[in-house]
Amino acid sequence: MTYDNLTLHTDKYQINMMYAHWIHGTHESRAVFEVFFRKLPFGNGYAVFAGLQRIVEYVNSLHFDDECIQYLRKQEENYDPQFLEELRRFKFTGDLLAVEEGTIVFPNEPLIRVEGKIFEAQLLETAILNFMNFQTLIATKASRIRQVAPDDILMEFGTRRAQEADAAVWGARAAYIAGFDATSNMRAGMLFDIPSKGTHAHSWVQDHDSEEESFYRYAAALPDQVTLLVDTYDTLRSGVPHAIQVAKTMEQQGKRMGGIRLDSGDLAYLSKTARTMLDEAGLSYVKIVASNDLDENIIFNLKSQDARIDSWGVGTQLITAADQPALGGVYKLVAREKDGEFIPVIKISGNPEKVSTPGIKDVFRLVSLETGRAEADYVSLAGETDVMSGEKLKLYDKVHPYLYKYIEQYEAIPLLRHIFVDGRQVYRLPNLQDIRVYHQKQLGLFWPEFLRKLNPAKYLVDFSTKAWELKMELIHKNTK
Amino acid sequence: MTYDNLTLHTDKYQINMMYAHWIHGTHESRAVFEVFFRKLPFGNGYAVFAGLQRIVEYVNSLHFDDECIQYLRKQEENYDPQFLEELRRFKFTGDLLAVEEGTIVFPNEPLIRVEGKIFEAQLLETAILNFMNFQTLIATKASRIRQVAPDDILMEFGTRRAQEADAAVWGARAAYIAGFDATSNMRAGMLFDIPSKGTHAHSWVQDHDSEEESFYRYAAALPDQVTLLVDTYDTLRSGVPHAIQVAKTMEQQGKRMGGIRLDSGDLAYLSKTARTMLDEAGLSYVKIVASNDLDENIIFNLKSQDARIDSWGVGTQLITAADQPALGGVYKLVAREKDGEFIPVIKISGNPEKVSTPGIKDVFRLVSLETGRAEADYVSLAGETDVMSGEKLKLYDKVHPYLYKYIEQYEAIPLLRHIFVDGRQVYRLPNLQDIRVYHQKQLGLFWPEFLRKLNPAKYLVDFSTKAWELKMELIHKNTK
Repeated sequence: MTYDNLTLHTDKYQINMMYAHWIHGTHESRAVFEVFFRKLPFGNGYAVFAGLQRIVEYVNSLHFDDECIQYLRKQEENYDPQFLEELRRFKFTGDLLAVEEGTIVFPNEPLIRVEGKIFEAQLLETAILNFMNFQTLIATKASRIRQVAPDDILMEFGTRRAQEADAAVWGARAAYIAGFDATSNMRAGMLFDIPSKGTHAHSWVQDHDSEEESFYRYAAALPDQVTLLVDTYDTLRSGVPHAIQVAKTMEQQGKRMGGIRLDSGDLAYLSKTARTMLDEAGLSYVKIVASNDLDENIIFNLKSQDARIDSWGVGTQLITAADQPALGGVYKLVAREKDGEFIPVIKISGNPEKVSTPGIKDVFRLVSLETGRAEADYVSLAGETDVMSGEKLKLYDKVHPYLYKYIEQYEAIPLLRHIFVDGRQVYRLPNLQDIRVYHQKQLGLFWPEFLRKLNPAKYLVDFSTKAWELKMELIHKNTK
Repeated sequence: MTYDNLTLHTDKYQINMMYAHWIHGTHESRAVFEVFFRKLPFGNGYAVFAGLQRIVEYVNSLHFDDECIQYLRKQEENYDPQFLEELRRFKFTGDLLAVEEGTIVFPNEPLIRVEGKIFEAQLLETAILNFMNFQTLIATKASRIRQVAPDDILMEFGTRRAQEADAAVWGARAAYIAGFDATSNMRAGMLFDIPSKGTHAHSWVQDHDSEEESFYRYAAALPDQVTLLVDTYDTLRSGVPHAIQVAKTMEQQGKRMGGIRLDSGDLAYLSKTARTMLDEAGLSYVKIVASNDLDENIIFNLKSQDARIDSWGVGTQLITAADQPALGGVYKLVAREKDGEFIPVIKISGNPEKVSTPGIKDVFRLVSLETGRAEADYVSLAGETDVMSGEKLKLYDKVHPYLYKYIEQYEAIPLLRHIFVDGRQVYRLPNLQDIRVYHQKQLGLFWPEFLRKLNPAKYLVDFSTKAWELKMELIHKNTK
């Protein structure tokens, strides 16, 4: 399958709604959609936004080619041929705003805003959510893992268990943004300039007459820093002693072994025993790498047992975000054009958390000038100026208003950046190294209480009084 | 990102092992790898094999192009330039056997077998597992859902929550193999000829002055069988009555509405009440579609409450296999060439279930000539003939040998088919409709006890005495 056009990477209902608008001549009417998620994954206190590069490339490459048109022609909807001609001319001509990759983000705040003709803005929903949901999920999972092992080497090893090829490469990139050091996936390494790392498999050992021979040969073929997998037959009776032999031989050749890898058994006990064996052999520089279905909880527990592991290869649990494999980001209409102006719209729901927040919104991070830490995020209607002028604000929980605080002496940093204006990309995608640096700076804005793995403090995302009152007004209006 | 060459879609250690073999001149030595998984997902009684088409396309397209070589040249391993030249000439010249897509499969039996030069067979591991693990997982999940709703319409609606783009399209295909009727993803529809279906979103309703107007306009634009989403404001007080108005108007125009869709709230109560309202309006032909985080358990429970739902849109839980988002398929060396012959190899492990089963193996499905049902699967060493001659067999649990049964009067159906011979594709990929039919026939081979969702009976996968004794022999040999 070498067909890489993603224009039809969308739900059929988007095309049907575009068609219905076109039939009624309302397709050039303007609309504003916002992307947000309602709930943080993994019980984490924050999420790490990712997916923007993919979204930008997607928007730039949108075009209905002959194959698309041919396929649409055959649909049971029996689309008017002139509609298909309109699609051939399709191009995104609207505005797209987004937070930058690597930004720490929270529920219910707008992360992406799309303003444009309804005909265009509707098409983008599915792919934007697909990319943002997955990449933000994996970046967040990776960040949790980084939090429990701040000084260790973290390697993404998940391709064989990833949910197909795109998940492997974009997941590796998301993990790298959030502080992983390397990936095993060479295509991800090539496409995104991520360091790629690897040791060897059991098959290497099995494919020789003896484990010793296999180790000697591997070390001879590869440069310094080779890592040997020691659990093919018996970790402590065979693997580690053989690795020590090889390391000593390497020393005689003026070389130094990089490490050994443990891939099964009791990693706490094995790593401590192996560490002692290595140290007693004068090999304190040989590192210990561990793998085997690791996640932040297992790593945290191993570290609390003083496991002597320097480097972690994390696979399945990271690349699939196994304990919660989907982020529920949504793309909701917040305003539509009527008589030449935008009017706010709402969606009511039997599930209260699914009621949308109407109106075109901005989001600001309020950073205390005193402490340099983020105090709250503030979502206001576009055009509200209080926060930008730096005036004293009362922040309060809109559902439980007795929970409040005042903030003054702050800087209000707008989180949404213009990415496309009138269909033209105005944002220069940063390189991945800069995104990593930016992400680390983002983390530095938050008190540790918000970043801890278990029962993190809840960071306040407040809505301006105007935004909240608008929501209440529309709820009442639509439930009369 | 339009670079679609998957040759470097592999773990770095594969390249490093290929390099180490090349350095030592052992790279053309032959080896046999087998793919299997150890544990069924979701507590299910079987899995549905999928991923073969993707694997075949991958193997056929393997080539190290300039970009690959350029990237490899920059690696810290400092690969010998002649090795890179060898890679440029790379082509898979070995044999690949696999079970067919749609086959019912079980733990510990070989599903794919790769025989070839170690240099070639090693490279393929990562991608084969990535494709097979994901697609088999989703086909299995879809099959569970199909089991609880045998006569309903099932639609795959998961793209926005899928783990990136490939997961969406290959997942849609896997679900279709296992009995889903349609997907919302148009690219999947186009690439694989899967029926694509869609209704409309809340945004369609929000983008009009009233729900009524939005419904009338949608019905006017689209042909018969339109489905209206009725929960944007209030399902029973607003959505359903408006849908009924529109349906009656359509009747006057000689048209018939297809259905209404419920996407929130109490689906049991709402569907029953909506059904009554529709029936009382003489609209018994209008179907009810439900969506909202459905899976086989929710559908099963809704059906047990007599929910009046005809058609199910299943998203997140299916496309991510949310309750177990990875299948742990592995690719293990089972034999290697020594002195011109294959010798079996084993991998021992501190985790007993991870000990591999040595030797090149075949797998047969033993189908009773009396009942036409599958009695057991039988894994034997390649070349064993007992099972093919149809002689009476004693099947017994090798760990608990008092659990045994005799089988005679059976047909032994080999499950592994030659896909590639000497690097040449000899298997013609069936079209998707044929795979669906084959899958249904496969299900027909099994007693319902093996297919049920909860606590299924355990289907016997037996190993021949020779295969078992070989394993025991190698365990003893390697633990002296």
